[in-house]
Amino acid sequence: MKLCDVGEREIVKMITERFSIPLDDCAFIENGNEYIVLTTDTMNEEHHFPEGSKPYYIGWYSVAANISDLASAGAKPIAILAAISMPRNYEMQLFEDILNGMEDCLKECGGKLVGGDTKEASILNISITAVGRVKKEEYMGRKGAKEGDAVYVTGTLGKEANLYLGDINALLHIKPRIKEGMMLSKLKVATSCMDLSDGLASSLYQLSRINNVGFLIHEEWLPVDEKAKKMSNPIEFALYHGGDFELLFTMPEKYEERLQFNFKKIGYVIHGKKILIEKDGKEEEIKNKGYEHFIS
Amino acid sequence: MKLCDVGEREIVKMITERFSIPLDDCAFIENGNEYIVLTTDTMNEEHHFPEGSKPYYIGWYSVAANISDLASAGAKPIAILAAISMPRNYEMQLFEDILNGMEDCLKECGGKLVGGDTKEASILNISITAVGRVKKEEYMGRKGAKEGDAVYVTGTLGKEANLYLGDINALLHIKPRIKEGMMLSKLKVATSCMDLSDGLASSLYQLSRINNVGFLIHEEWLPVDEKAKKMSNPIEFALYHGGDFELLFTMPEKYEERLQFNFKKIGYVIHGKKILIEKDGKEEEIKNKGYEHFIS
Repeated sequence: MKLCDVGEREIVKMITERFSIPLDDCAFIENGNEYIVLTTDTMNEEHHFPEGSKPYYIGWYSVAANISDLASAGAKPIAILAAISMPRNYEMQLFEDILNGMEDCLKECGGKLVGGDTKEASILNISITAVGRVKKEEYMGRKGAKEGDAVYVTGTLGKEANLYLGDINALLHIKPRIKEGMMLSKLKVATSCMDLSDGLASSLYQLSRINNVGFLIHEEWLPVDEKAKKMSNPIEFALYHGGDFELLFTMPEKYEERLQFNFKKIGYVIHGKKILIEKDGKEEEIKNKGYEHFIS
Repeated sequence: MKLCDVGEREIVKMITERFSIPLDDCAFIENGNEYIVLTTDTMNEEHHFPEGSKPYYIGWYSVAANISDLASAGAKPIAILAAISMPRNYEMQLFEDILNGMEDCLKECGGKLVGGDTKEASILNISITAVGRVKKEEYMGRKGAKEGDAVYVTGTLGKEANLYLGDINALLHIKPRIKEGMMLSKLKVATSCMDLSDGLASSLYQLSRINNVGFLIHEEWLPVDEKAKKMSNPIEFALYHGGDFELLFTMPEKYEERLQFNFKKIGYVIHGKKILIEKDGKEEEIKNKGYEHFIS
């Protein structure tokens, strides 16, 4: 059996079960009344940085994608480690551009590059580990969504349209919702939170499995990105494409007025396991699809 | 200017200066009266796992090499994250063998796999981040070696001979000196400590630059590995080859009797910047060479 016969999500399931790892965006270590929160992402030029990606934005993205995971836990970024493999004939200037992008992202989001590793390889591969802190009582995970909660997102959905419109660097220049995540976690009102890196549909299916609930999403409530609206199928982009790195969270609706940042209600947590989208009074099932390594 | 015109050590120097990172095996984060110690290593099949490497030993090595860095800081391993890129047609069984090797290494050394990432790439690439804890007063770094201190190593030197003798898996099956590192750090007697992953000569040059001292090593005191003795140039293997993952440390000689583990004195810290080896009363300079990515 090959990895492409299994697929990324089954592989992750196998590992998380085997090592008893909770299915969260981040790992955490007990530390008195707080958690040290850890997350890692590995990326390579073959699958993550399409032709035309500027090294500055590659560096930015590699850090930002990890900080987005800290944001979903409500953690404050404190440090990152960067392990970078590059071809031996890679230009020093391009490498410095990658570092510039990393540094600017850290300036904006917080945290400091504290260590790393550089090695030689035939393809560019960047593995970032980000470390944050959050009070135990403020930690947000994927488990906890309850029937009757409302479902929210930050920002807009469908920004992967940038890729199809030829603006790859806009796609890489993501803004991790670190302020929003920290504000939300301090209120202690969210019942679950994750980031949208795999796309809305795929994320809803993950929350459904973990929480044993369904979702009813209202198509007209989706904050579809202006770029997605330029495509022939904007809703497809909002539902099934990755690359948004927004926060998806659930909470009782009554707390809405306490949120001091921009957010959009997109639907409700419902009984059962169905994940539905409503438009003009008609409900349809949202498909369980999104980008998946090894089989997509 | 390309990376191969600069070389790994100059690249690391540039990064550590730019981000004000101390030149240690590990990064650390302040945490009350202790440090959270972090280290990352990225490895790939092109440069680290020669033909014939068994996936089990690849997994073992990838974790062990990182835990060796924690050992040199005197830290206790608590967690690792594993970011693994693999070809889509990679066999699931081989991937599970990699995980088996990682798990067995953690069972022996301590710590738990708490998170990670899997991605698709044309070559196998494994990035491990290891996390440990150490009391601030017990932390061992590279800075502190003083003229008059003696120089010690654990274990034997020159085990890279295994590679030349065709036993690649023995080379990958390294034993991180985690117990020795923790015992040494609790005594608070070492003035500097690092691991020997780059080879003895290269490590002495690094300690020399950081501490502004020289070294006089006695060739006859070197604990040359039995495998290296099978080669025509055993001392070359002990001095200039990587892959030993032993601890190299300095301390005042008077503390020797307090060490409760196997170690070998190999020489002394001396005034000046020269790094010498003595044999039959004759001194020669040790060359500044060892494996270096991008130019070796």
